[in-house]
Amino acid sequence: MKNVPFEGVIAYPITPFDEKENVNIPLFKQLVERLVVNGSQGIAPLGSTGVLPYLTDEEKEELTEATMQQVAGRVPVLVGVSNLTTERTLYHAKFAEKAGATAVMILPMSYWKLTEEEIVKHYDTVARHISIPIMAYNNPATGGIDMSPALLKRLLEIPNVTMIKESTGDVQRMHYLRKELGEEVAFFNGSNPLALAAFAAGAKGWCTAAPNLIPELNLALYEAIQKNDLAEAQKVFYKQVNLLKFIVQKGLPRTVKAGLNILGEEGGQLRSPLQPLSEVENQELVSLLKECDILSPSFG
Amino acid sequence: MKNVPFEGVIAYPITPFDEKENVNIPLFKQLVERLVVNGSQGIAPLGSTGVLPYLTDEEKEELTEATMQQVAGRVPVLVGVSNLTTERTLYHAKFAEKAGATAVMILPMSYWKLTEEEIVKHYDTVARHISIPIMAYNNPATGGIDMSPALLKRLLEIPNVTMIKESTGDVQRMHYLRKELGEEVAFFNGSNPLALAAFAAGAKGWCTAAPNLIPELNLALYEAIQKNDLAEAQKVFYKQVNLLKFIVQKGLPRTVKAGLNILGEEGGQLRSPLQPLSEVENQELVSLLKECDILSPSFG
Amino acid sequence: MKNVPFEGVIAYPITPFDEKENVNIPLFKQLVERLVVNGSQGIAPLGSTGVLPYLTDEEKEELTEATMQQVAGRVPVLVGVSNLTTERTLYHAKFAEKAGATAVMILPMSYWKLTEEEIVKHYDTVARHISIPIMAYNNPATGGIDMSPALLKRLLEIPNVTMIKESTGDVQRMHYLRKELGEEVAFFNGSNPLALAAFAAGAKGWCTAAPNLIPELNLALYEAIQKNDLAEAQKVFYKQVNLLKFIVQKGLPRTVKAGLNILGEEGGQLRSPLQPLSEVENQELVSLLKECDILSPSFG
Amino acid sequence: MKNVPFEGVIAYPITPFDEKENVNIPLFKQLVERLVVNGSQGIAPLGSTGVLPYLTDEEKEELTEATMQQVAGRVPVLVGVSNLTTERTLYHAKFAEKAGATAVMILPMSYWKLTEEEIVKHYDTVARHISIPIMAYNNPATGGIDMSPALLKRLLEIPNVTMIKESTGDVQRMHYLRKELGEEVAFFNGSNPLALAAFAAGAKGWCTAAPNLIPELNLALYEAIQKNDLAEAQKVFYKQVNLLKFIVQKGLPRTVKAGLNILGEEGGQLRSPLQPLSEVENQELVSLLKECDILSPSFG
Repeated sequence: MKNVPFEGVIAYPITPFDEKENVNIPLFKQLVERLVVNGSQGIAPLGSTGVLPYLTDEEKEELTEATMQQVAGRVPVLVGVSNLTTERTLYHAKFAEKAGATAVMILPMSYWKLTEEEIVKHYDTVARHISIPIMAYNNPATGGIDMSPALLKRLLEIPNVTMIKESTGDVQRMHYLRKELGEEVAFFNGSNPLALAAFAAGAKGWCTAAPNLIPELNLALYEAIQKNDLAEAQKVFYKQVNLLKFIVQKGLPRTVKAGLNILGEEGGQLRSPLQPLSEVENQELVSLLKECDILSPSFG
Repeated sequence: MKNVPFEGVIAYPITPFDEKENVNIPLFKQLVERLVVNGSQGIAPLGSTGVLPYLTDEEKEELTEATMQQVAGRVPVLVGVSNLTTERTLYHAKFAEKAGATAVMILPMSYWKLTEEEIVKHYDTVARHISIPIMAYNNPATGGIDMSPALLKRLLEIPNVTMIKESTGDVQRMHYLRKELGEEVAFFNGSNPLALAAFAAGAKGWCTAAPNLIPELNLALYEAIQKNDLAEAQKVFYKQVNLLKFIVQKGLPRTVKAGLNILGEEGGQLRSPLQPLSEVENQELVSLLKECDILSPSFG
Repeated sequence: MKNVPFEGVIAYPITPFDEKENVNIPLFKQLVERLVVNGSQGIAPLGSTGVLPYLTDEEKEELTEATMQQVAGRVPVLVGVSNLTTERTLYHAKFAEKAGATAVMILPMSYWKLTEEEIVKHYDTVARHISIPIMAYNNPATGGIDMSPALLKRLLEIPNVTMIKESTGDVQRMHYLRKELGEEVAFFNGSNPLALAAFAAGAKGWCTAAPNLIPELNLALYEAIQKNDLAEAQKVFYKQVNLLKFIVQKGLPRTVKAGLNILGEEGGQLRSPLQPLSEVENQELVSLLKECDILSPSFG
Repeated sequence: MKNVPFEGVIAYPITPFDEKENVNIPLFKQLVERLVVNGSQGIAPLGSTGVLPYLTDEEKEELTEATMQQVAGRVPVLVGVSNLTTERTLYHAKFAEKAGATAVMILPMSYWKLTEEEIVKHYDTVARHISIPIMAYNNPATGGIDMSPALLKRLLEIPNVTMIKESTGDVQRMHYLRKELGEEVAFFNGSNPLALAAFAAGAKGWCTAAPNLIPELNLALYEAIQKNDLAEAQKVFYKQVNLLKFIVQKGLPRTVKAGLNILGEEGGQLRSPLQPLSEVENQELVSLLKECDILSPSFG
């Protein structure tokens, strides 16, 4: 039986910066605390939401350690360690393991399109040098590579690659994984607007930045699924779907920061070239948060 | 309240031909009878499955009349009347209405990409001259036009356009329709591999050729949804998903004919250029029918 | 040596309709005459420009005969005979041959995506029953099938398939054809905005509706190429490129009709669902015709 | 008049590594020397070919300085300084300027898709802090963003953004740039298989890794264009097109290294996850080099 230490709603914190665009660790810890307190069933720092590729090695290490300290064992922690080179990926995977991470997530980042052999070797090299489980992450929109279901199946043959995160937005990929790999395969949905369809297809969990803004609705969806109550899941999903689409479409770091500010929370600054939402986008987000009942209709 | 005379599993018969590639009406009636007897909640002749665009005007009229006679009011009938020109579309819509069809289905067929205005005018012209409801059908893969959710919304403002059939294979289109148009909007799923995701998203029915081969499984999925039993729906769906993918991928008329033959039924001939499945494809279909428990494991 | 009876600028007439949307044969002949008189090196009725798929069998026959009468041997004639069924394609190919056509053009029209075997059989069946050459036409945007260069190569092995018309808009397809098939292969460009790139790549001719509006510029491009004068070809091409893009983008039948009207010529009516250009589009076309020096700067 | 210090064939060296995957500076200098001696009209280190994004800041600085020393003013040098963050892009742009680079090339690298405003601000920030010209580089396949011609036009309004490199592989982008921006706009082609089409469209130069393997053929193409001899350009282009396609398809760093080895030159190692060509791919490259007359037909 494979080691799959996650299920349910896995929350992705943003990485906040100060006025000089340096990482703001105290604020980061505060944002992690909110996610834990609000019921997230896992915490995943250094994901796309956490602008992993825009950070230096030192910043990644600090953020990993800050997460472990703040979470303090209350929920499992999934640390993103993706890097263009195999050497750096391995370095950060070892660091995360030593820091106490429950598992690491690896996206095969690509500048030059990698061959299947290159991808398998990349994962295999990392896997052989660490003992904690690996979540293989497929997200062509950010990573630049689309791993076929057949390739994902191949990666799962590596002993400690035990989880798949699918973010293509194509529910048929999940059907394939489930059919090919059996009911025990642990696939996680990383495409917010597909949350309902993915759970209906059997996803074990939902990797999402949405709990930064609407944790109750996110958790309510998972609970309805666990109770086998499709009607309720549908109702809860349609309440949040427009917000889920918006945060994906406009970019998770930018929209989470803007949403936190609207909700009266500190969200820190972005690192350039990323820029804040425009005023029009901000107003749209206000409306969507009202639709989710997280903001009062009379707000603003 | 809009007039929506369909729900559940709407079955699409193939159009069988004889050795000279002429339409075989007696065999067609026999195939329609099987669909009704096996529990389909609607019959839809002259769809893509029925190779509508490969038929002459006279053949379309004969097939419409044959369906009405054979179904004889047991279930509602949805007649496909799509044509490249507005004049011919209207002609066949009127014919279907006079023959007693419950509703007509119209795909905006395209050779020259139509503008939104041209599409609206096309539907509007037909709608003004008939009294029965129209199902607007979006299927870019066969029709050559991808109608945006916003355009579909516009079409629904025409009084007797009361139903949408979505076959893009993108479940997010259904989310949009449901969100924009409210819970009463009647959208039907026309993408077989999305059957579970579409019902989870609130689809009112499933337009499918699959009941020609596996009616019990198709109906069982709809029943599980009606009972709000997602776990059962998931189980039933995964049993049939590989067959559903195969018939779409290899083409419905070709695979339904081949499947009927495997099941010991007459399926008639195809009209050229369409050709029978290869022997390898045929064997694959045998395996998939076994996976669906419709063929005994010892078959062949 | 293969029989390739075309080269240079092959002009596509529109099919004009009267107020009742019936084909207007006298006006059609007048439009064909303009094309011949203006120097076109071939005439191609019943193409996409001529709205072939929107016509009845009888109309196609009338238009074929009208073209032969009007051209009267002054230039070669290429008749479009594409149809969804093999039987109808063969019927019209035979009709064109009997009427005196120099060659026929066949697009593998598709509703159900055809397999490679089905496409080869389709061409082969027609080719075995006629003696005149066939131009195989690849245009996924209208025909719905994208024939790979490898498939086109296979079609050229059929003795009287002697010409390829490429309309994918990808100049690399032409490179492939030329490399794989040698310098003698006769490939024709059907993508107007690629006219210069295609001639530079070695295209033998240009299949285009543009001579309905700007014959001098079209011919000047071909002449510069024949004189090996790239600098001149570039100059002439950039003069017309924006018009070429516009007529493709807005649809050839609609833009040619509008352009004829602007130039003071009769263009007839369109057949629904096709509708005239909007007023804004019309003004844009006026500007583009001025840019081509075919309209005086003071027009309008 | 804008400052455009490049034209003709701009050659991209690979970055060679030693057995421990550390940068091999002496071998790099040797490879740069070959490119200069073989007639390249510009040298561009730290491009995609030079695996820029796989390098540390220190390595980038060493490679920049090594290039300047080796080239020693014989031809202009274009240094790649692209980075995900604005801060690091600016840092390397300043370093390149100080080191004596003629110009810098900037690809708007993206993990989170950038808005147009973010892209403009990114370029503008860098441009305001350096005095040498900038080449804006559009390559969605590696950079993850497709800058529209309209956006490129906007970037050209920044005073020292004076050159565009287009690598989308769509010759129509070049038509647009030339039409919109006039004959003086300096656009460079970065898509090897489009070399002929791009020069025919008016490209001022060709940014390419091919001179590492077939410098004579690359230069011969440019010379034919300068002599306005399209027939010769076509002949020379078709001789090399299959090699050009291959090196793009299999990845420039991997194929250049393999090709150098086949030609008896040192090419160093790759940095993981990039791996050498397979034996089959290597044999294919041997055939292609023979086709280019750079290897004798009896080789191997």
